[in-house]
Amino acid sequence: MATDIEQKVMEAKIASIVLASVDTQTKDNALEAMAKALDANRNKILEANKADLEEAERMKSEGKLSQALVDRLKVTEPKIDGMISGIRDVIKLEDPSGRTIKTLELDKGLELYQVSSPIGLIGVIFESRPDVVPQVMSLCLKSGNATVFKGGSEALNSNRVIFNILVEALESTQGIPKGAFQLMETREEVMDILALDEYIDLLIPRGSNDFVKFIQDNTKISVLGHADGICHVYVDTDAYLNKAYDVCFDSKVQYPAVCNAMETLLINREIAEDFLPEMIKRYEKAGVELRFDEGSYAIAEKLGSANIAKATEDDWKTEYNDFILSIKLVDSIEEAIDHINKYGSHHTDAIITENKTKRKQFIALVDSSSVMVNASTRFADGFRYGKGAEVGISTNKIHARGPVGMEGLVIYKYVLLGNGDKVATYAGDTPRPFTHKELDRKLSDIINE
Amino acid sequence: MATDIEQKVMEAKIASIVLASVDTQTKDNALEAMAKALDANRNKILEANKADLEEAERMKSEGKLSQALVDRLKVTEPKIDGMISGIRDVIKLEDPSGRTIKTLELDKGLELYQVSSPIGLIGVIFESRPDVVPQVMSLCLKSGNATVFKGGSEALNSNRVIFNILVEALESTQGIPKGAFQLMETREEVMDILALDEYIDLLIPRGSNDFVKFIQDNTKISVLGHADGICHVYVDTDAYLNKAYDVCFDSKVQYPAVCNAMETLLINREIAEDFLPEMIKRYEKAGVELRFDEGSYAIAEKLGSANIAKATEDDWKTEYNDFILSIKLVDSIEEAIDHINKYGSHHTDAIITENKTKRKQFIALVDSSSVMVNASTRFADGFRYGKGAEVGISTNKIHARGPVGMEGLVIYKYVLLGNGDKVATYAGDTPRPFTHKELDRKLSDIINE
Repeated sequence: MATDIEQKVMEAKIASIVLASVDTQTKDNALEAMAKALDANRNKILEANKADLEEAERMKSEGKLSQALVDRLKVTEPKIDGMISGIRDVIKLEDPSGRTIKTLELDKGLELYQVSSPIGLIGVIFESRPDVVPQVMSLCLKSGNATVFKGGSEALNSNRVIFNILVEALESTQGIPKGAFQLMETREEVMDILALDEYIDLLIPRGSNDFVKFIQDNTKISVLGHADGICHVYVDTDAYLNKAYDVCFDSKVQYPAVCNAMETLLINREIAEDFLPEMIKRYEKAGVELRFDEGSYAIAEKLGSANIAKATEDDWKTEYNDFILSIKLVDSIEEAIDHINKYGSHHTDAIITENKTKRKQFIALVDSSSVMVNASTRFADGFRYGKGAEVGISTNKIHARGPVGMEGLVIYKYVLLGNGDKVATYAGDTPRPFTHKELDRKLSDIINE
Repeated sequence: MATDIEQKVMEAKIASIVLASVDTQTKDNALEAMAKALDANRNKILEANKADLEEAERMKSEGKLSQALVDRLKVTEPKIDGMISGIRDVIKLEDPSGRTIKTLELDKGLELYQVSSPIGLIGVIFESRPDVVPQVMSLCLKSGNATVFKGGSEALNSNRVIFNILVEALESTQGIPKGAFQLMETREEVMDILALDEYIDLLIPRGSNDFVKFIQDNTKISVLGHADGICHVYVDTDAYLNKAYDVCFDSKVQYPAVCNAMETLLINREIAEDFLPEMIKRYEKAGVELRFDEGSYAIAEKLGSANIAKATEDDWKTEYNDFILSIKLVDSIEEAIDHINKYGSHHTDAIITENKTKRKQFIALVDSSSVMVNASTRFADGFRYGKGAEVGISTNKIHARGPVGMEGLVIYKYVLLGNGDKVATYAGDTPRPFTHKELDRKLSDIINE
C-alpha cells in the first residue's frame, strides 16, 4: 500500500502531466495571484513565523540551534516584499518550455520537431529559509513543473502558512491542475522522499554543504546543485599586479560566506616577493586570517605580520565560508592547474595573467563550471550571468552546469508529424533517402493554427 | 589502497582533462589511424573471435547461452567493414565540443562565454557485441571524452584484441593522451565499476533490458539509456484508415526485435468494427500473434480468426520484442493517453488522426521522448533523426532524451574574460548596472588569435 508521502508524490506526478501543457498566460496569471495573496496575508505569515522563532530561540538557548540559523528562519516585512517582487520577476522571464529548438525535414511532409518541455516532477528539500517556497514554486510553475517541497522542522509553521496561501491563490485562478504542488510535513522523513526515484525526476537541495552532500549520497534521483565551493585564484608571472590585488581582494572579501568566494590563493613563486607583501597588507586590514604554505610563510614572516599561521594539507580541502584564506606558492601554471583540479570542487576558478598562451591553457585545462580570466570568482551567479532567477549553481557534469536558471528545469521531446509514413519505405534494398533538411518552422505555429 | 580497477579509472580520469583540450584535426587523424588499423588486422580479429565463438558454442550446447547471443558475438568480414566505415562516418560528423553556445557582455570589457565541453569520463558496460568498442570509442574520442569499457566475458578475446589494435593506433598518432581509454577485464566486476561515481561522469549500458535495468538499479552514476521500450499506436475516430493500416503494420512488423517497435495497439471503440478486421488480416498474414482485450476479442471472434488469445493485465506491461501484439479498445483519446502514460515506458508513442485538436492534445499530454503523429514508431532512431551516429535512446528526463547523438556526450563551461573586474563595483548602495547584451563572438576566435 502507498504511504501517505507516496500518495502525495503520486498525486503531484499525475498533475505534472497536465501542468506541462498549461500555456504561458495562464501560468503568469497564477503567478500574479500568488504575489497578491502573499501581499494580502502578511500578518498571517509573520504570526506563523513568530511561533517558529520562539521555538528556535528556545532551542538556541539549549545550544541546539545557531544564531545564523535563527537569522535565516526570520521573516520580516522586507523579506515578504522580496518574495513578492521575486514572483513578479519570474512573470517577466521567458517561458522556457514549449520552444521549438530545432526542426528537421526528414522527407517531404515528414517533419521532426525538437521542443523544450518541463522535466515533470521536481523535489525540493530545504533547510530553514521559508522564502524558498515562493521562490522555487514560482520558477517551477513558470517552467511547467510540478513540485514536492520538504522543509526543515524549524520552519514548520512558516512553511505551512506560506504554502497554503500560495496554493489557495493557485486554486482561485483557472487552469492550474490541483495537486501539482505538495508540501511534506515534518513527520514525513527525508529518506522516504529520496527513495521515490520512480516518481521524482530531479532533486534540488537548498541548505548547507553537509545537507546537500547527505542528499547526494542517499538517492538515485539526479541532484542539481553542489556540495562544496572551493574556489581558487592563480596569480601568474604575467599578471598585472593591480588587477591581481583587486580580483584577489574581491574574490575573498566582498562576501566570504558564499560558495563562489575564493578559499585558496595560488601565486607563482617568481612574483611572490613582488605581489604578496601589498596583498597581505590589504587582507590584514580587512581582517582576513591567512594560512601560509612554507614559501609564502617565509615572505609573511619577513614582513613581521602578526598572527601568521601555517597551512596544513587539510586547508587545501576546506571551504572556510569565512574571512580565512589559505595561500600557496607554485612553480608553474601547470602546478596551479593540477592543484585546482585535485583540491577544488570544479565550481569557479580564476587566473590573473596578460599572457594569451597561459590564458588558453588555463581555460582548456581547469575542469570547473566557471573559469574566470582577470575577473573575480564572485561573478559566478545566476543574476550576474543574466539569468534573472537562479535555481542553484551546479557542479554536475551532465544536464546543467554552473549557475542554473529555468533552463535547468526543462528537457525536450521529439514530435514527428507525418502522413501515414512507414520506416519500410526508407529501408530494404532500395531505400528512399532522407532529406534531413533544417526548416525554420515552429511547432507552436503548426499545432495552434 | 586503490584497487586495480580504480587505478585504471583514475588514469583515464587524469587523461580526460588533457583529452578535453585536444583539437578536432588531431582527433580526426587518430580516428583515421583507428580505421586503418582495423583494416590491417582483420585476421587477428577474426582469430580472436573464433576462440570466443568456440567457447560460446560449447556453452550453448550446455544450454547456458542462446543462439541470439552467439549471433551477436560473431564477427565477420562485413562486420569489420561496418566498424571501419562507422569510424569514418564519425570523422565526418561535427565536433560537438568547443562550440560557443552563447556570448553575453556583462559590461564593457567583461564578456561571458558559454562553451560546450566534453563531459569527462564515460563508462561503457556492454554485453557480447565486440563492435561496441570501435563504435563507442570513436564517438567518445571525437567528442573529447575518456572512456572505460567493460565487456561481457563471452567476448573476452575479441574485445581485448580489438581494443589493443585501436589503442596502439591512437598511440601511433600524436596528441592523444595515453591512458584515456581503458578496457576492464573479466575478473574486474561490474559492481566495482558502478561504485566509482567519484570518477565516472556518465554510464552508457549496451545490452538487454534486464542488463540495463540492473545497472540503473545499482549505481549513483547517471545512466544514459532506457530499460524498456513499450511503444503504442492509438487509432483515433478521426483516423484515415489507410494511414492507420500502414503505420500500425510498420510499427510492429518492419523490425519487431527493437525498442521502438509497437507492443500495444489502442483503438477507439467507435471505429474498431471498421478498422480491426482488415488490420487483423494483415497481421495474421505477417505471422503476428495477437492478444485481445474483451472488446477486440469479440470482433476477432466474429471474423473466425484462428488461434485468437485474450490479453491479461501483464500484456500491457510487456515488451515482446517479437511478432506478438496486444490490442485494446478505448472509449476516448483520454483513455488512450492515460493507458500510454501508465503502462508505457515514455519511449515512443503514436496517434493516427486527422483532427487537429486531438493531435495537439496527444502531443501535449503523452509524456514520451518521441511523439509520432501519423508516422511509425520505428522512426525514433538516431540515424533517421539525422544525428549520424547514435549513442543510444534515452528515456531520462534530464540531460538528453530520445535518440541521442554526440550532443549527449557534451556539457558546457562558462568562461568570463575581464580586466581585473570586481563584484564590489556591481554591488552596494550605488551598484553599476550590468549591460547583459548578447554578442555575436566565439571564444575560439578570441583565444586562438
